[in-house]
Amino acid sequence: MKFSVVTSNVHKAREIAAFFKGVAEVDHISLDCPESRDDDIGVIARKKAEYAYAALGMPLMTDDTAFSIGALRGFPGPYAAYVHRTIGNPGILRLLEGKLDRRAYFETAVAFASEEGIRVFRGRIEGRVVSPRGSDGFGYDPIFEWEGRTLAELSLDEKSRISHRARALSLLKAWLETRDFQVRQLRE
Amino acid sequence: MKFSVVTSNVHKAREIAAFFKGVAEVDHISLDCPESRDDDIGVIARKKAEYAYAALGMPLMTDDTAFSIGALRGFPGPYAAYVHRTIGNPGILRLLEGKLDRRAYFETAVAFASEEGIRVFRGRIEGRVVSPRGSDGFGYDPIFEWEGRTLAELSLDEKSRISHRARALSLLKAWLETRDFQVRQLRE
Repeated sequence: MKFSVVTSNVHKAREIAAFFKGVAEVDHISLDCPESRDDDIGVIARKKAEYAYAALGMPLMTDDTAFSIGALRGFPGPYAAYVHRTIGNPGILRLLEGKLDRRAYFETAVAFASEEGIRVFRGRIEGRVVSPRGSDGFGYDPIFEWEGRTLAELSLDEKSRISHRARALSLLKAWLETRDFQVRQLRE
Repeated sequence: MKFSVVTSNVHKAREIAAFFKGVAEVDHISLDCPESRDDDIGVIARKKAEYAYAALGMPLMTDDTAFSIGALRGFPGPYAAYVHRTIGNPGILRLLEGKLDRRAYFETAVAFASEEGIRVFRGRIEGRVVSPRGSDGFGYDPIFEWEGRTLAELSLDEKSRISHRARALSLLKAWLETRDFQVRQLRE
């Protein structure tokens, strides 16, 4: 089986290709898909996949990630990248000053499009916002604590294994394997 | 001359139709255009117009508005609506605590699409972020001061006359009138 990752991020495409080794052959297509401004990244990923499938007409996946803080009504949500570029971690910590509820989560939605339609798979890791710790990682990693350590205190390897994206991709992988198995059974 | 306003906001469409009375007949088309995540609303409005023109093939306009705070590197920018829904004015004021530079602006970009291509017109009002004052208006109006008063201290009429959107629409109106005049001259 073969599909394409539609993203402008070469790095991400390479990681995903490695993740599917032995299960699927994964190409990279760099296409700029418009991102709808829905608060739900599942909807955003699905619309990107619709757009890309209309343009390319071959099996593909798109993804989108949010960082949501409960006490801030989900902010920064799907706009995590923009918010990080502007107010950054100091801004987030300032917004949370004096708030006791520090719960937050990262969520990735992966949308897989093929002639059968579009399926969305989600992966989430739940944790809390803390003062910055650790020197690995980027973005919100130093202020997001998961099971006692911040993401910036995990090795890249460990982080890749437990990440929201890895969780969403695992669901897609399992689904593709089952589907492949069914297709083979139908043929036999 | 005749064109359509493509927006899901009926209210906005009606206001724009009134604005162009005597110059152009303005229809409302409710179409959900994907919004690219560019930091520049000129690019966002242009891409919405491209999308809508590809779908409808008739003269139309789209628009997009940003609220940009200098000391926050332009935040909340094109995501003003989402940010208002989540952290709101208290969040903005908290992020600015202790900052002396309070400059901010509202900007609207209007994109007009026709068989001649797409043109973008921009309108901006510059002011500063202050503690909330006034009871008219909505969104960031109470914390945005323009020439001594917050937008929530202006009457709706006054606000409509000086607004960023009115400024952008005036440029479009002037351009349409000039173009119309040229078309008439060609015909005579």
